[in-house]
Amino acid sequence: MDCPWNELSLAFSRTSMFPFFDIAHYLVSVMALKHQPGAAAMAWKNPLSSWFTAMLHCFGGGILSCVLLGEPPLRFLANSTNILLASSIWYIVFFCPRDLVSQGYSFLPVQLLAVGMKEVTRTWKIVGGVTHANSYYKNGWIVMIAIGWARGAGGSIITNFEQLVKGSWKPEADEWLKMSYPAKVTLLGSVIFTFQQTNHLAISRHNLMFLYTMFLVATKITMMLTETAVMPFAFFEDTLSWMLFGWQQLFSSCEKRSETNSSLSGTGSSTSKPVADASDKVHKKHTKKTKFT
Amino acid sequence: MDCPWNELSLAFSRTSMFPFFDIAHYLVSVMALKHQPGAAAMAWKNPLSSWFTAMLHCFGGGILSCVLLGEPPLRFLANSTNILLASSIWYIVFFCPRDLVSQGYSFLPVQLLAVGMKEVTRTWKIVGGVTHANSYYKNGWIVMIAIGWARGAGGSIITNFEQLVKGSWKPEADEWLKMSYPAKVTLLGSVIFTFQQTNHLAISRHNLMFLYTMFLVATKITMMLTETAVMPFAFFEDTLSWMLFGWQQLFSSCEKRSETNSSLSGTGSSTSKPVADASDKVHKKHTKKTKFT
Amino acid sequence: MDCPWNELSLAFSRTSMFPFFDIAHYLVSVMALKHQPGAAAMAWKNPLSSWFTAMLHCFGGGILSCVLLGEPPLRFLANSTNILLASSIWYIVFFCPRDLVSQGYSFLPVQLLAVGMKEVTRTWKIVGGVTHANSYYKNGWIVMIAIGWARGAGGSIITNFEQLVKGSWKPEADEWLKMSYPAKVTLLGSVIFTFQQTNHLAISRHNLMFLYTMFLVATKITMMLTETAVMPFAFFEDTLSWMLFGWQQLFSSCEKRSETNSSLSGTGSSTSKPVADASDKVHKKHTKKTKFT
Repeated sequence: MDCPWNELSLAFSRTSMFPFFDIAHYLVSVMALKHQPGAAAMAWKNPLSSWFTAMLHCFGGGILSCVLLGEPPLRFLANSTNILLASSIWYIVFFCPRDLVSQGYSFLPVQLLAVGMKEVTRTWKIVGGVTHANSYYKNGWIVMIAIGWARGAGGSIITNFEQLVKGSWKPEADEWLKMSYPAKVTLLGSVIFTFQQTNHLAISRHNLMFLYTMFLVATKITMMLTETAVMPFAFFEDTLSWMLFGWQQLFSSCEKRSETNSSLSGTGSSTSKPVADASDKVHKKHTKKTKFT
Repeated sequence: MDCPWNELSLAFSRTSMFPFFDIAHYLVSVMALKHQPGAAAMAWKNPLSSWFTAMLHCFGGGILSCVLLGEPPLRFLANSTNILLASSIWYIVFFCPRDLVSQGYSFLPVQLLAVGMKEVTRTWKIVGGVTHANSYYKNGWIVMIAIGWARGAGGSIITNFEQLVKGSWKPEADEWLKMSYPAKVTLLGSVIFTFQQTNHLAISRHNLMFLYTMFLVATKITMMLTETAVMPFAFFEDTLSWMLFGWQQLFSSCEKRSETNSSLSGTGSSTSKPVADASDKVHKKHTKKTKFT
Repeated sequence: MDCPWNELSLAFSRTSMFPFFDIAHYLVSVMALKHQPGAAAMAWKNPLSSWFTAMLHCFGGGILSCVLLGEPPLRFLANSTNILLASSIWYIVFFCPRDLVSQGYSFLPVQLLAVGMKEVTRTWKIVGGVTHANSYYKNGWIVMIAIGWARGAGGSIITNFEQLVKGSWKPEADEWLKMSYPAKVTLLGSVIFTFQQTNHLAISRHNLMFLYTMFLVATKITMMLTETAVMPFAFFEDTLSWMLFGWQQLFSSCEKRSETNSSLSGTGSSTSKPVADASDKVHKKHTKKTKFT
């Protein structure tokens, strides 16, 4: 197997994240923090709090996966080099004279490059999480999916929680666990890499990493360029949701029709209400999806 | 010791919880979740969030005890069989056509059987927690009580916390840590089994498990059948509370009387206020207990 | 080196915290809890909840450092002697007839003695935390600072969190992480002892412990006696904050002046706004500091 494709993907999978991709990840995370209302003023008023929040934004996924596996959440602080790198980027972004970094970042090609590189680190994190969980729980595939997901997309949970404690974020029963696009795509990746790890997918890992990363980067950049909510999963999700939760509706409709025919009005009216309720819910779900929540 | 009683309790203490008692526990937990307002609609709108909440309801005690002992909270996910069992029950309860399971569960004998079997698992959990904590901290009897309690009754703390994060539960200073009946009875069991573990009770463990389980099931079923708040602990609690916190009141009353006699009016008026306050508190406590909070 | 100074500091650094200094720490912590509005009434109504809160006040720093290092947070319960000691003090403070302990504590010399002894335990906790973190992460100096800080001053974070869960504390984005004086002085101590641990300070540990403790006690007692907010760090902080975050302002002002000269009015007006903003922030910071938040 010395075909150039294989060599390319192998070389790609051996790329080190350390200096450049990590910098892109920290840059995108800190810029996301800076665009929150009040974050810049907060950094002037209380630099330590702002630094702490920035670290949570940069290392949130790792912290969450450590908490879930019962490892010290402070482990990320032991890697002094990465901390110093992230701190430098936080310092430059927030305190650069004349806000040069923000102005540079608002230039679209720079932003596209940074976001693309950040998506590459996502693949590495998922693979790292799945492998790490596998070393704890042999064949505990639910744990592997959960840890891969937590490390790849858990930063948003940690930061939401931090804002909850700070009091600047009022949770609503509706919003919590409503999955964003990154959460969905990371869950998909986590499932795929877990299947690969347990040898249920006949594809080598480096090829899978290459393909998944290409998919991530392409989707993200398309979404940024077109500024529309491309939903690559909408069709897939609808099918799955129909298979898992929709058949009751079908079943109930048939039931209702036959019941109406045989004039069992008492039972009929008692079931018609939940059915209407359910179809209403499913309908709402469809309309919600089209506007990409 | 071949008396039939001993054999019976020994056989009972060797019963495996796995398929049937666990199913009863999951069923009762998920039904409790379903009866919360909005839970059914939430399951249609966001199945993943509902599934996650259901898992917290089913495995909450285990998660809390893992967190308290510094073990990975995800350990419960490693037991794939139990997760699949609990997920199936969640799926059947929430998405069964025509809501058959709920209708079956509303039939009283079924409910009594399920609740009775769930109470049996409580004994097993307390014993498991106490033994597990003992393997960590030899003779750390406070830890043993705490872990036995957390595993037996900690689910409600975890789920309250989850609702707090979701924003659907507004905590009040009054309500937090006001102990429910299960919390009290689990604390009692945890104390008893800890004393048995440290050889302060001259009774074999299987006999104690049998007696405690019988007590649990009998009390619970009586409470469900009569729909009144039977308080087997009210008298015991009152005595304990009087012994620990009531003697000051007695002491103060004597003090006050003698003070009034010797006309030390300045000091007398300064103490009379807290005394009145305290007796008022104790009075409130009594009235509160009669309505079984 | 047999000079009396050295012997004194060595003997001081070998003092055991156990009976007396620990008692002072528990006493000050529990009295702080009792002075919260509603705490005394709560203790009568729900003794278990009050006891739990008191334990969090007494052992909060240790619990936080255990959580951060991935150790069981219940470890503090394994030390039965200390738990019993703290429980006794909680019992005496809250339920003593005629409130004798509170009346005794309101006598200034007693309060000064207790607070002074509590400050001594702070040094021991910081040193313990730094040494403990060092045994986990060799040369992980950020972790060492964090754990020393958490153990010395983390109690307030734990208790704030507990109040948040109870619902009796509404967080504000402004207040969170606004550092109190103990937090600042503990951070300073944690940094100093970490440098000592990594051999960057040419001073023996027992001398450093003696000097730092003297500084702590002297500052605290001065602050209590004068009832003014002595800020020993205000000058230091201002300098540091100017060095780290102030030079942009200077740089920008120069920039602006030169820009005004060369009449680059477009760019000038775009930068003048943030500069004004920043100087406004810095000005606010100064005024804030003078009133000792």
